[in-house]
Amino acid sequence: MTTLKIGTLAVIGVGLIGGSFAAALRRAGSVGRVLGAGRRPETLAQAVTLGLIDEAVTLKEAATRADLIFIAAPVGAFEAIFAEIAPHLGSKTIVTDGGSTKRNVIEAARTGLGSRIAQFVPGHPMAGSHEKGPQAANPDLYQGRRVMLTPLVENHPQDIATVQAAWQQCGANVVCIDPSQHDGAVAAVSHLPHWVAALFMQYIIGGDDAMLKLETAGTGFRDFTRVAQGSPEMWRDIFMANRDAVLAELVALRQVMDRAEHALREHDAVWLEDMLDRAAKARAEWPGGTK
Amino acid sequence: MTTLKIGTLAVIGVGLIGGSFAAALRRAGSVGRVLGAGRRPETLAQAVTLGLIDEAVTLKEAATRADLIFIAAPVGAFEAIFAEIAPHLGSKTIVTDGGSTKRNVIEAARTGLGSRIAQFVPGHPMAGSHEKGPQAANPDLYQGRRVMLTPLVENHPQDIATVQAAWQQCGANVVCIDPSQHDGAVAAVSHLPHWVAALFMQYIIGGDDAMLKLETAGTGFRDFTRVAQGSPEMWRDIFMANRDAVLAELVALRQVMDRAEHALREHDAVWLEDMLDRAAKARAEWPGGTK
Repeated sequence: MTTLKIGTLAVIGVGLIGGSFAAALRRAGSVGRVLGAGRRPETLAQAVTLGLIDEAVTLKEAATRADLIFIAAPVGAFEAIFAEIAPHLGSKTIVTDGGSTKRNVIEAARTGLGSRIAQFVPGHPMAGSHEKGPQAANPDLYQGRRVMLTPLVENHPQDIATVQAAWQQCGANVVCIDPSQHDGAVAAVSHLPHWVAALFMQYIIGGDDAMLKLETAGTGFRDFTRVAQGSPEMWRDIFMANRDAVLAELVALRQVMDRAEHALREHDAVWLEDMLDRAAKARAEWPGGTK
Repeated sequence: MTTLKIGTLAVIGVGLIGGSFAAALRRAGSVGRVLGAGRRPETLAQAVTLGLIDEAVTLKEAATRADLIFIAAPVGAFEAIFAEIAPHLGSKTIVTDGGSTKRNVIEAARTGLGSRIAQFVPGHPMAGSHEKGPQAANPDLYQGRRVMLTPLVENHPQDIATVQAAWQQCGANVVCIDPSQHDGAVAAVSHLPHWVAALFMQYIIGGDDAMLKLETAGTGFRDFTRVAQGSPEMWRDIFMANRDAVLAELVALRQVMDRAEHALREHDAVWLEDMLDRAAKARAEWPGGTK
């Protein structure tokens, strides 16, 4: 593992994701000074009180002073942030992010950063919580979790290595993949379950016998629909941001569902049992099942 | 609540469902003697050892001696059981069951019991467990749980009342509904989540980047797919038994999903947020969410 020393870290958006990144690097002794920027002064003041950041600064100051900038704001705000930091960015400063979709973030970076695009190494830590805000920040959040980097052809290898080393200092396992592969994977395993669970709830409450059905529902229903409770605003943004990948994965899922419906219509019990058997085995063998 | 005294209870299939019914009635002091019948002598011997039943008997003996017969065998075996008990059934004996689908059980009863059909009061306790067999039987299994009865036009009101009282002695809440309503409700809230979760697993393991997706999957995926681990044989039988209702509910679900896909294709963020909001609220308000 690289011995990493970041002179000045700037976190833009000091909530769960950004605050935990700062806390983990500070605990690891990998960072000198920590700056924090963001829309709400009271959040930054709280982050100072909690010791997550040393100082609240403007985006311009963050761009001028930081060696590494971590953007952990809502993805919809990225393009404006990139545009605001671009003119002030130090020539050696590395910018990375924690956005949960990557193709649209890269597009925003190309627009906002312009000729500084080589300094941006896109990333996505696969960690989260129901809690949010600086008070939810936790230096252990990334311990044993996966971080996906989707480097650009313009990136310098040593910048990619620095971002990778920073995440490793947080305890994360880092993999580099293509942005489309990333967006497809999260569309499939994160966005689609939310999509289907929310629509399933919608169908239950909007259909015949809604009250009877809700009264009849048990533990299978409970687990299957749990994700549907997530923030409507956040998930709307995720679906809009990762629209193409979600649509592509939905088409693929429907093909599998259509095939199964055909088997049920045709009374094909052998096909059904085989399918159910493979699904049950795959789920039982998935190592995250006991998490 | 009716004071219930069943002279002799016979349980056909002394596993989790049948054994728990016997244990709960015995604890309530509502039953004199408990007979057990079933395919496997070792299971019946175990049920005697555990004190769930007093005596292992043949189906013929159960039919001759019991005041109340509870059938808790796999639904596929029901027609043969009905046919075997019919000629020996006492004129006052009431037969009920715990099968998880009702229209096909009623059809099997009409075929198997013939002119004795009025003696059969169909039912379905909404309770279960991953565990099975007589060792999993538990007098508290039905405490606070719902039992749906789907009485026949031929049933005598006092027989329906007796079955209802027996379940109340087990601590259950009893409702009487139409068999089609029952089958539709369980298709929607129990069978469909399993169907979709299993096919979702199938789509993940059979699609592009299966390994990457499984490695990327987190807690949302974990909850959403949990039910897919259920017994393939049991679920194959459930889908085949409740085929018409499952197909009807699948069509209704697909309409909701198609509408949402249209909104996503059209970048209709307002529609999406409204849908996500209603789904999140409905899930949060569902009283079973904290079970």
